[in-house]
Amino acid sequence: MISPVETTHIVLPPHTNSYGNAFGGQIMAWMDIIAGISAGRYCRGPAVTVYVDELQFARPILLGDIVILKAAVNWTGKTSMEVGVKVERESPKTGQREHCLTGYFTFVAIDAEGKPKEITPLDPMLLDEIDLRRYKQAQDRRTHRLGKRIEYK
Amino acid sequence: MISPVETTHIVLPPHTNSYGNAFGGQIMAWMDIIAGISAGRYCRGPAVTVYVDELQFARPILLGDIVILKAAVNWTGKTSMEVGVKVERESPKTGQREHCLTGYFTFVAIDAEGKPKEITPLDPMLLDEIDLRRYKQAQDRRTHRLGKRIEYK
Amino acid sequence: MISPVETTHIVLPPHTNSYGNAFGGQIMAWMDIIAGISAGRYCRGPAVTVYVDELQFARPILLGDIVILKAAVNWTGKTSMEVGVKVERESPKTGQREHCLTGYFTFVAIDAEGKPKEITPLDPMLLDEIDLRRYKQAQDRRTHRLGKRIEYK
Amino acid sequence: MISPVETTHIVLPPHTNSYGNAFGGQIMAWMDIIAGISAGRYCRGPAVTVYVDELQFARPILLGDIVILKAAVNWTGKTSMEVGVKVERESPKTGQREHCLTGYFTFVAIDAEGKPKEITPLDPMLLDEIDLRRYKQAQDRRTHRLGKRIEYK
Amino acid sequence: MISPVETTHIVLPPHTNSYGNAFGGQIMAWMDIIAGISAGRYCRGPAVTVYVDELQFARPILLGDIVILKAAVNWTGKTSMEVGVKVERESPKTGQREHCLTGYFTFVAIDAEGKPKEITPLDPMLLDEIDLRRYKQAQDRRTHRLGKRIEYK
Amino acid sequence: MISPVETTHIVLPPHTNSYGNAFGGQIMAWMDIIAGISAGRYCRGPAVTVYVDELQFARPILLGDIVILKAAVNWTGKTSMEVGVKVERESPKTGQREHCLTGYFTFVAIDAEGKPKEITPLDPMLLDEIDLRRYKQAQDRRTHRLGKRIEYK
Repeated sequence: MISPVETTHIVLPPHTNSYGNAFGGQIMAWMDIIAGISAGRYCRGPAVTVYVDELQFARPILLGDIVILKAAVNWTGKTSMEVGVKVERESPKTGQREHCLTGYFTFVAIDAEGKPKEITPLDPMLLDEIDLRRYKQAQDRRTHRLGKRIEYK
Repeated sequence: MISPVETTHIVLPPHTNSYGNAFGGQIMAWMDIIAGISAGRYCRGPAVTVYVDELQFARPILLGDIVILKAAVNWTGKTSMEVGVKVERESPKTGQREHCLTGYFTFVAIDAEGKPKEITPLDPMLLDEIDLRRYKQAQDRRTHRLGKRIEYK
Repeated sequence: MISPVETTHIVLPPHTNSYGNAFGGQIMAWMDIIAGISAGRYCRGPAVTVYVDELQFARPILLGDIVILKAAVNWTGKTSMEVGVKVERESPKTGQREHCLTGYFTFVAIDAEGKPKEITPLDPMLLDEIDLRRYKQAQDRRTHRLGKRIEYK
Repeated sequence: MISPVETTHIVLPPHTNSYGNAFGGQIMAWMDIIAGISAGRYCRGPAVTVYVDELQFARPILLGDIVILKAAVNWTGKTSMEVGVKVERESPKTGQREHCLTGYFTFVAIDAEGKPKEITPLDPMLLDEIDLRRYKQAQDRRTHRLGKRIEYK
Repeated sequence: MISPVETTHIVLPPHTNSYGNAFGGQIMAWMDIIAGISAGRYCRGPAVTVYVDELQFARPILLGDIVILKAAVNWTGKTSMEVGVKVERESPKTGQREHCLTGYFTFVAIDAEGKPKEITPLDPMLLDEIDLRRYKQAQDRRTHRLGKRIEYK
Repeated sequence: MISPVETTHIVLPPHTNSYGNAFGGQIMAWMDIIAGISAGRYCRGPAVTVYVDELQFARPILLGDIVILKAAVNWTGKTSMEVGVKVERESPKTGQREHCLTGYFTFVAIDAEGKPKEITPLDPMLLDEIDLRRYKQAQDRRTHRLGKRIEYK
């Protein structure tokens, strides 16, 4: 794993709507923060979110749940990095963990003026088998994303 | 527009990283809140985020910017709704507005036990031309999403 | 309407006291933020709150309610602007809206040193009938305020 | 002083706009919280804000300033109480204190259903000279407020 | 009392865990803020927390409780100050107050580069009996702390 | 390690005072949250902070720093648990990590009425060498704490 980060939250009242479910938006915010830390660790400088792949919330995350997020850089381009983020919930009563969602966040390294900045590329030759598989899957997603790019006027 | 909601924020220090850009995660959280209000207005009860289509951040949103979010329900299924959310930034100095991103959030209406609950479907026959176009595009995205569904164990 | 702003919130646990009512102070904070956005849109620069007319909370705003705030500039002086803010609550279950309160916030445009700064005045000749009525009512409130001014030592 | 409360804050980045001034809305929120504590102390139960007299911000409150708020009940009616709140800023460098504003907040005691609830009245005969003067001034404000009451439909 | 500060909070949902107790961490954060205000008042400049003596939470602090914190400087060294902080809870229903904990926080005054900065020492000759007792007890704690100092590598 | 938890934060403007240092109180709040998650994992139910050993902040933690916290249960009594929490800062530019402080937090498991509740004791026979050393050191600290206990009236 490249630039791995782990973080653990507990779902408190401010994170939930009035019927006890954690907001999707809160989970996304936690994912973006940890992905940003992982990207920043890789490029040793500021990086900003430019793309988030589709997110499928497989199961609700509830008030009192422990939420474990793990992030790592999967792939790098000239100035961009793909960070994978896995989210699990853990029942506070049973300790049982369930995978809730995985997201792919693309960050771009920026300089002091906010312009994209080149980063040291990941060398696929140096990756172990698992990381290489992640790298290749990320490259496929990258190709797919380029095809979907929209030009906002 | 079905169940339209509009909201306006101003980017303050807690919404930004240390180099003055609004966090992607903060923008996503704002989008999810307004999409949830729109979905809740449609189904008159609680609804939870189950899917977020890919998000492309076209341009940075900066400290001091005014951020305008507009959301509306595009399409309904048996228990689910697709909500479109448009995000614009407005320069506080010039008043110029720029489109930053559009996202599609799928919500499911739930009952008091958190189980999916049937909703009154949108009748496409009653939609005007623009809303009907939105409805059909949402239906295409829905078909696409079903094909991508992952079974988390 | 001059520099209109609309914003929509949902009342969550952090906005309420322990018996489920939104804090008056939270409502006032939301009013001040949106009034400041409206004033800032008018003068294209920073502006600070200098006066808030009396606020009458006609009915409680509860956990889970949707709160809609609308603000617009009613009147301008040499460096100051009056912004009117209307607050409505919407029941999440019935969708029924009720007018909760209206407030008048006076802002002063400031320069980089924090000193009052002249603004382009609203030309009453260019206002439509409704905005002209608002302008005149604001002028009456202004006259009233000047008479009540206190000199703090 | 009846049910006096004192509280001290320090102005931090989340309390300020992007040019270093504390938001008027933040100050109002702090005033409402302390006024509510004072009212709750008087009636030993929940109380909600129903009226806020006009607020005149005499001078700006800046990032890093110490803010001292003092509140006390001035007057009671059958179910309502007027709480006066004084706000001072203290320069962190010189220690100099300045009076920034005073506000009068009216609270109504409520029961478990949120209905107004009778409270033990303040007996003016038991007040010392200063508190009696406050009581009478509050009564004048009360009379004035009744004349200004608006019926929201 | 030297540089006394008083502050009053009310325990709201964001301050509590899911079973209605205020977090120990929230109480510690409130203690640190008020201790920092007291230290800053003494040295008229920035000061940072360097040591916190053991904290014993004698009784739980609950949702809806009023929390009163009082802080004052007990002792000064060349660049450091000991601040004592007393925390009481007040029942919102009965008004009964209970002492919950007392903490001793050591702060160091810093200059613009973050280096320790000399402060004007407290002159024990000028202290009244109570403050002198506090001063001597603080000095004993200081001696004890020096003996426990750990060198982190 | 027993019930280990890891969490990673990034220091943002709301976590710092006006000169760019993270508040001691913020660090303590983060430590208490992660210690509480670790204790809750051990006893599979609610637990509250009852004692925090002295905390020595060895070096400042700055705006933009990455903060890594690791917690684990060291020792258990009849109803109480000692949790050790290690805090490191990581420079965002160099990636260099430094140990900032270690704290020992004692939690008590509670039942639905908030009364202390028995927990399954850690069996020292089952611990590996490192955990056994931690257990014994925790036991020494426990003995020391009992001797320092204060009776608050």
